[in-house]
Amino acid sequence: MTLQQAIEKLNRTEKAIYALNHATCIVSTDGETAAPRESWRARGESLAYLSELLYQQTQNPELEEALQTILAHREETDEITYRRAQVLQEDYEDMHVLPMEEYVAYGQLTNDAGAVWRQAKQESDYALFAPYLEKLIAARRRYASLKAPEKPVYDVLLDCYEKGATMAQLDPFFETVRRELTPLIAEFAKKPLTPPAFMSEVFPVAAQREFSDRIMALEGIDPARCTLGETEHPFTSGPNKWDVRITTHYHKEDVLASLYSVIHEGGHALYEMGVADELQYTCLGGGSTMGVHESQSRFYENLIGRSRAFAEPLLRAMKEFFPDQMRDVTEEELYRAVNLAKPSLIRTEADELTYSLHVMIRYELEKAMMAGDLTVPELPAAWNEMYRKYLGVTPPDDRQGVLQDSHWSFGGMGYFPSYALGSAYGVQMLRRMEKEMDVWGNVARGDLSPITAWLGEKIHRFGRLKEPMNVLQNAMGGPLDPTVYTDYLKEKFTPLLRA
Amino acid sequence: MTLQQAIEKLNRTEKAIYALNHATCIVSTDGETAAPRESWRARGESLAYLSELLYQQTQNPELEEALQTILAHREETDEITYRRAQVLQEDYEDMHVLPMEEYVAYGQLTNDAGAVWRQAKQESDYALFAPYLEKLIAARRRYASLKAPEKPVYDVLLDCYEKGATMAQLDPFFETVRRELTPLIAEFAKKPLTPPAFMSEVFPVAAQREFSDRIMALEGIDPARCTLGETEHPFTSGPNKWDVRITTHYHKEDVLASLYSVIHEGGHALYEMGVADELQYTCLGGGSTMGVHESQSRFYENLIGRSRAFAEPLLRAMKEFFPDQMRDVTEEELYRAVNLAKPSLIRTEADELTYSLHVMIRYELEKAMMAGDLTVPELPAAWNEMYRKYLGVTPPDDRQGVLQDSHWSFGGMGYFPSYALGSAYGVQMLRRMEKEMDVWGNVARGDLSPITAWLGEKIHRFGRLKEPMNVLQNAMGGPLDPTVYTDYLKEKFTPLLRA
Repeated sequence: MTLQQAIEKLNRTEKAIYALNHATCIVSTDGETAAPRESWRARGESLAYLSELLYQQTQNPELEEALQTILAHREETDEITYRRAQVLQEDYEDMHVLPMEEYVAYGQLTNDAGAVWRQAKQESDYALFAPYLEKLIAARRRYASLKAPEKPVYDVLLDCYEKGATMAQLDPFFETVRRELTPLIAEFAKKPLTPPAFMSEVFPVAAQREFSDRIMALEGIDPARCTLGETEHPFTSGPNKWDVRITTHYHKEDVLASLYSVIHEGGHALYEMGVADELQYTCLGGGSTMGVHESQSRFYENLIGRSRAFAEPLLRAMKEFFPDQMRDVTEEELYRAVNLAKPSLIRTEADELTYSLHVMIRYELEKAMMAGDLTVPELPAAWNEMYRKYLGVTPPDDRQGVLQDSHWSFGGMGYFPSYALGSAYGVQMLRRMEKEMDVWGNVARGDLSPITAWLGEKIHRFGRLKEPMNVLQNAMGGPLDPTVYTDYLKEKFTPLLRA
Repeated sequence: MTLQQAIEKLNRTEKAIYALNHATCIVSTDGETAAPRESWRARGESLAYLSELLYQQTQNPELEEALQTILAHREETDEITYRRAQVLQEDYEDMHVLPMEEYVAYGQLTNDAGAVWRQAKQESDYALFAPYLEKLIAARRRYASLKAPEKPVYDVLLDCYEKGATMAQLDPFFETVRRELTPLIAEFAKKPLTPPAFMSEVFPVAAQREFSDRIMALEGIDPARCTLGETEHPFTSGPNKWDVRITTHYHKEDVLASLYSVIHEGGHALYEMGVADELQYTCLGGGSTMGVHESQSRFYENLIGRSRAFAEPLLRAMKEFFPDQMRDVTEEELYRAVNLAKPSLIRTEADELTYSLHVMIRYELEKAMMAGDLTVPELPAAWNEMYRKYLGVTPPDDRQGVLQDSHWSFGGMGYFPSYALGSAYGVQMLRRMEKEMDVWGNVARGDLSPITAWLGEKIHRFGRLKEPMNVLQNAMGGPLDPTVYTDYLKEKFTPLLRA
C-alpha cells in the first residue's frame, strides 16, 4: 500500500465514522431531550446497529495497513494526517479490546443499567441497582485485564478519561486537597448558612428560559451553532463545531441552579465550538480529555461565573429579567449568594470549596472497588462513612447518597477525578491568563470575548491534534501543582468565612 | 436458498433498514426542530452516508434471491412475511431505478433545492429557484423514463404517492370538483367576510403551547408516544409507533392556525400510532399511501374538527385556556368562525370548501409541466392565471403564488392530488361510520375514542399489510365517488352562505 492509498483509505474511513458518530450523537441527544418517553423501546435496536457498523468499519485489515503505512512515514505526512492516524489507532485499539458481540452487549448493558439506575434512584432502592453494578464492575475489570493485563485495573480506567492519569499521580493530588481544604471546610460547617432574601423568591420558569438566552449571549455563545434543551441532568453534546447542544433544568424556587448549569455547559460548548475548522469531520474534531473539558466548563462556571467581578454584569442581567425579585440586591450580596459554602450531600449542588471532596470520596471508593477491597453490598455504608468523615454529613437515604450520580450506570468508573483535575487545571490557566491580560476588568465589563479568545488560542483550537498534557502544560505554564488550586480556594473562601 | 434461509436474510435486512431509517428520520426531524441553524453544514454528509448504506443494504444478489424465494412460496409463508417480501421488493426496485451515485446525488439536489426554495420564497424571487426546478423536473422525468418508459411521466409520479392513481382517474375527479364546487365558491367570493370579534384578540404563545397539550389530549394522543415541536411548516414524522413527532407553528394573532395544525398532524400521528405491534420494525410498520394518510389527518381536522358538534368540546377547552378572549363566544359563532369560506391565495390557510381547488390548480400545472406543455419560465404566469380563473384572486407576488409550497423543492411532483383524494376518501369513511355509530353524539361529548377505534380497526392497524385500495374500499364501503365529497361540501357550506 502506498502512502497515497493509505491516506485515501483513512479519509474514506473517517467519513464513515463521522457519519455514524453524527447519527449516534443526534439519536442519543434527541432521546434525552425531544423524544417521547416510550421511544426508548425502539431506539436501542437502532443504536446497537450503528455501533455494530462503527465496529466493523474500523476493524478491517485494510484500515490497519493504512494506519501502519501512515505511521511509518512521519516525515512525508502532514501533522494533521499523521495525528489522525495516531488517534484513530488509539481509539479503535480501545474499541477492539472487546470482540464485537461483547462490545455491543456492553452497550446494551449500560443502556439497561441506565434505566434501572434511574428507577433505583427515584425509589431510593440500592438493591435494585446492585446486580447491574456487579455486572458493570465485572465488565470494566474484564476490559482492563484485556487491554493492559500488567497494570492495575483502576489505572487502566483512569486513563480512559484522563490520558496518563494514574493512582500514583492522583493519590498525592487528593491527599493535598484533603490536607489543605479540610480545616477550612470544617469552619464553614460550623458557620450557619445565611442565604439572602432573594434566594427564597419565585423565579418563573418562562422568565428563566428567556434569561438563559441572555446568559448564553453574555458567555459569547453563538445561538446559530448551539441550542439549549431541557433535561433532568444537564449535559453537552453535538457532532461538530456547528452543531452543539447544551441542556439545563429549571427550578422555579432556585434561579441559580439553572444559571450555573447553563454557564457550565456553555463552557463545554465553547470548547467544542472553538476547535479548528480543518479538524472537523475527523477524529481530532472534538475536545480532548474529560479533564481538559472540565477545565473549560468549570473555568466559566466558577473562576469567572462565581468571581466578584462577574457579579456586576450578572446582577445587571438578573435585574433586567427579574426586577421584582432582585430589586434591592447588591453586587456584594449576589457574590456571597453564589458562593455560599457548606458541606452537603449532593455533588452537583456543592459549592466550589467542598466540591473536590465529593470527588475525592468517589475516587477512594472506586479505587477500593476496582481493587476488590470493597464489595457492591458494602458500598452504601462505605459511602456514608466517607461523607460523615470528610464532610460531616450523613445521607438519609441512598437517593441522596450512593445512587445520586449516573456515572457508574454507564460504566464510568474512573471518570470522577476529571472533575477535580479540571478545576485544578483551570486555576493554573487563570493564573497565567492574569499575567497576560486584564481578566477582571473584562469580566466586570461583561466582555468575556478576550478570555474565550485566550482559551481558544491555547486550548480550544487544537481539539485532539496535540497530546493533551502538552496543550495543558503550555496553557498552565508548567506541570499540574495542586497547591495552586488549594491556594486559590483558600484565598477566595477565607474572607467569605468572615462575611 | 431454502425458504428458512430466505426468511432469515429478510429479517437481517429489515433490521438494518429499520435502524438506518430510524437514524435518518431522527436526524432529519431534529434538523427541522431542535438543531441550531448552522448545523445544516455538517448534516448533509451524514445523511448522504446513511442513504448510501441503505442503498447498498438493499441492493445485493443474496437479498434478491431471498425475496424471489419467499415470493415463490406463497402457500408456505405467513401473510406478514409474504407481504414484507412483496413491499420490500417494490420499495427497493423503486430505489434502484437510479444507480447509487445518481440516487445519492438526487438526495443532495433536493437538499440544496430546499434551502434555495426557502430563500427564494422569503425574497419572493422565482428566478433564484427556477434553475433548481429545471433540474428537479429533469431528474423526475429521468426517473419516470427509467422506471416505466411505456407510461406517461406524470402517471409514474402519481403512483409514487398514491398507488394506482393515474390521470385517467384524476381528470374526471377534478372535473367533478370543478363543476360541482365552482358555483358555490363564486357565491362565497361575493359574500363579505365577517370574522367574529374574538378572532382579532391576542392569544399569547405561552398559553397556546399549553392549549396544544389539551387539544392533543382531546384528540386522544398519548403524550408518552408523541411529542409536539415547533417549525415554520407543520409536519408529522417518527420512526415507529412508540415515537411519533408532530409540529406546529404559533401566531399570537391567530389561535386557529396552530389549533388546526395540531389536530391535522395529530390525525397523521394517530394513524402511525395505531399500526399493529407485529408490523413494527418491518417495512409494513407505517402508514400506506399519502392519500390514505391525508384521509386520516383531514378527517380529524375538517370532518370532526370543523363540525358543528365539535364546537361544543372545543369552546369548553378554549374558554378554559383563553377565558378573556372567548368570554361571550357561542358554539354557533365558533362553528362559523372555523368555517369562514372565501377564495384566497394560500393553500395551507384555505377553508375546507375552496381547498380542493387549490389542489386542482397544482394538478393541472404539474400535468402540463411533466408533459412538457408548460416550461419553467412560463409557470408563474400560468399559476396566476389559474388562480384568477378558478378562485378569482391574483397573487401580488410569487411568495404568495407559485413559491408558496415546499413540495416541488423536494421533487414531490405528483404529491398534491393526495390531499384532495384524502379529503374525498375521508368523507366516504364518515358516511359509513355514521351508519355504524353515533358519531356526532360522541364528538359533542368530546369523546373521540370510538371514532379512533373505528379508524384503527378499518385503516390504522393494517399499516402496509394490505393493498391500499382494498383497505380503503373496505373502509369506504365502495369505490371512490367524488360526488359524495362534493355533496358533503355543498350540504355543509350552503347553509353557511346565508349565515
